[in-house]
Amino acid sequence: MADHLLYWEDFAQGQTRPYGPLTVQREEVLAFARQFDPQPFHLDDEAAAASLFGRLAASGWHTAAMTMRMMCEAYLLDAASLGSPGLDQLRWHHPVYPGDTLSGQLTVLATRASEKRPEMGLVQSRWETLNQHGVLVMSMEGWGMFRRRPGS
Amino acid sequence: MADHLLYWEDFAQGQTRPYGPLTVQREEVLAFARQFDPQPFHLDDEAAAASLFGRLAASGWHTAAMTMRMMCEAYLLDAASLGSPGLDQLRWHHPVYPGDTLSGQLTVLATRASEKRPEMGLVQSRWETLNQHGVLVMSMEGWGMFRRRPGS
Repeated sequence: MADHLLYWEDFAQGQTRPYGPLTVQREEVLAFARQFDPQPFHLDDEAAAASLFGRLAASGWHTAAMTMRMMCEAYLLDAASLGSPGLDQLRWHHPVYPGDTLSGQLTVLATRASEKRPEMGLVQSRWETLNQHGVLVMSMEGWGMFRRRPGS
Repeated sequence: MADHLLYWEDFAQGQTRPYGPLTVQREEVLAFARQFDPQPFHLDDEAAAASLFGRLAASGWHTAAMTMRMMCEAYLLDAASLGSPGLDQLRWHHPVYPGDTLSGQLTVLATRASEKRPEMGLVQSRWETLNQHGVLVMSMEGWGMFRRRPGS
């Protein structure tokens, strides 16, 4: 393990980390919707205009996946990440449209050592993803599992 | 609106609906990971073998997206769906591996009319996605928004 990795000990309650930006491409919105969420308001301009979204909007799962991409680039790929058991309070607050530029930040809510696995610790975070107007588009809370610093 | 659509009135507490099956393709696991979740255990066999997953495993977001695809095919594309405000208790219980065949069911937990929008109602559901061995791999709970039956 390289020394530059972020281990569980490197996360502390109250810490924040920015992520992004990432610009939402229309072709990617359509490709994601075709593969995973082919509801008309994610695929068709006319259907979207008649929907609550007002115009073509990204699948909420696409917004979550784009947030994951930003999280990976901002810190997860530099961390001794072991995955996640799950998330809570995933909320899609505002539509995400092609051309939007997303960014956000995570806040560490809590950390705790694993009772079952002494080599592992857990970090609870809240993620907030905003568009280029500063409008909150998605938020979620959840636990990540991280390796503890060797010899700690 | 075609008469065959499922409206809010067609969902009732305790109702269940099956979804799936869908077989997980290795190339799609890799493509999703490259685009959205390039952590080594989702991209590389050796890194995955050394991880908690034991072998190459799909991103949890990919499992969620595949579940959404199955939900669309099972009922959402036949429903007057208006989207979702969010989800709770998203849990990744067990890894999903290339070659797995997923299926599942939703259970309607509650329904309520919208206070703000008389043309809309909300349906709270629990979704449970299992692999071909009957092992629960993912579960979540959340609200969907549906149009009410015209003239109801």
